[in-house]
Amino acid sequence: MSPTPYVTFFHAPHSRSGGTRALFEELGVDYDMHVLNLKTGTQRDAEYLAINPMGKVPAIRHGDALITEQPAVMMYLADLYPEKGLAPPLGDPLRGPYLRWMVFYGSCLEPAVMDHSAKREPVPAMQSGYGDYDCVIRVLAEQLEQGPYLLGERFTAADVLYGCALRWFLMWKLVPDLPVFRAYVERVTSREGIQRADRKDEALAASQEG
Amino acid sequence: MSPTPYVTFFHAPHSRSGGTRALFEELGVDYDMHVLNLKTGTQRDAEYLAINPMGKVPAIRHGDALITEQPAVMMYLADLYPEKGLAPPLGDPLRGPYLRWMVFYGSCLEPAVMDHSAKREPVPAMQSGYGDYDCVIRVLAEQLEQGPYLLGERFTAADVLYGCALRWFLMWKLVPDLPVFRAYVERVTSREGIQRADRKDEALAASQEG
Repeated sequence: MSPTPYVTFFHAPHSRSGGTRALFEELGVDYDMHVLNLKTGTQRDAEYLAINPMGKVPAIRHGDALITEQPAVMMYLADLYPEKGLAPPLGDPLRGPYLRWMVFYGSCLEPAVMDHSAKREPVPAMQSGYGDYDCVIRVLAEQLEQGPYLLGERFTAADVLYGCALRWFLMWKLVPDLPVFRAYVERVTSREGIQRADRKDEALAASQEG
Repeated sequence: MSPTPYVTFFHAPHSRSGGTRALFEELGVDYDMHVLNLKTGTQRDAEYLAINPMGKVPAIRHGDALITEQPAVMMYLADLYPEKGLAPPLGDPLRGPYLRWMVFYGSCLEPAVMDHSAKREPVPAMQSGYGDYDCVIRVLAEQLEQGPYLLGERFTAADVLYGCALRWFLMWKLVPDLPVFRAYVERVTSREGIQRADRKDEALAASQEG
């Protein structure tokens, strides 16, 4: 393989790309960062729409490849640095469950939480991609109760995704304030890399206020 | 590596697991099938809820691993049989875009289509995980216009997912009847494996009517 060029990370502070920044810091790898400002709306500039036509963060560019959608970005990065051990490798018994929970985040948890937050009338469970909100919350809580991490004993990139997201959801009261969620968020977000990402993101957000 | 045991596939005819059946046939591998009947509701039996507590298909079991969520199931299977060439391998420049579109399906396309179909009031684009329906449809159409396949020249498991889903969405008028969608669905679903899966699924659905 040719040497891996740095990954360029398209990021906005205090946004959905915070989990990806935390993953970079947990991986402990260098990366180039391109900062967007959601307040002034630079994510809708033509330059950025050429990266992600959805106008969302995170996105990454690696060589000629563009990758968007947070779980895809995180799966890609964790596989790119296998020596960091944040993704069960192909052939590992945890590989399938890892993919399952990575996809569950965007297909079930986020839509369920957003629909619930917007107080939308539920659609019939058969028609909905995720069933219903209570089921999604219960299934996630039951999985985390087996802990300490989403896949059991092993900490993976999936925990960076869920730990950062659940912290946000708890803060905004978008999920029930269950002890299992609180303990998990504390366990994950007290890690050194995530704490470092938090500090950097605070400074970046402050610089955009100026 | 130890010999790969057969994968057990939890399937219901004429359901969201149809794409997974099509993928098995495109891979041309043997599998064990456990059939559910959505009309009599066997997906809510305790036995199946132990497989997928969401009560949804598809799910697969491989050894001790349980995998749910259609894009995760399909990514897992395509990686499990690398010699079939339906997933760009790790290190391939198309690997990232492949993950992107696999996740986009469950995070963006399906929620957008379901919300639109249920005539729900859109939530603000910043709050929504997918932005808005028109944007999702436009982004997908622009990608497919580069064709012939979702990732360009290379046919992958992502095409099985999108081809089968778009066929369904067109049939139920859940997406605009664009020539690019029609041509793509025709190109993908006329493949031998998918045609074979269609015939088998028709027979299975008929047997459940009896």
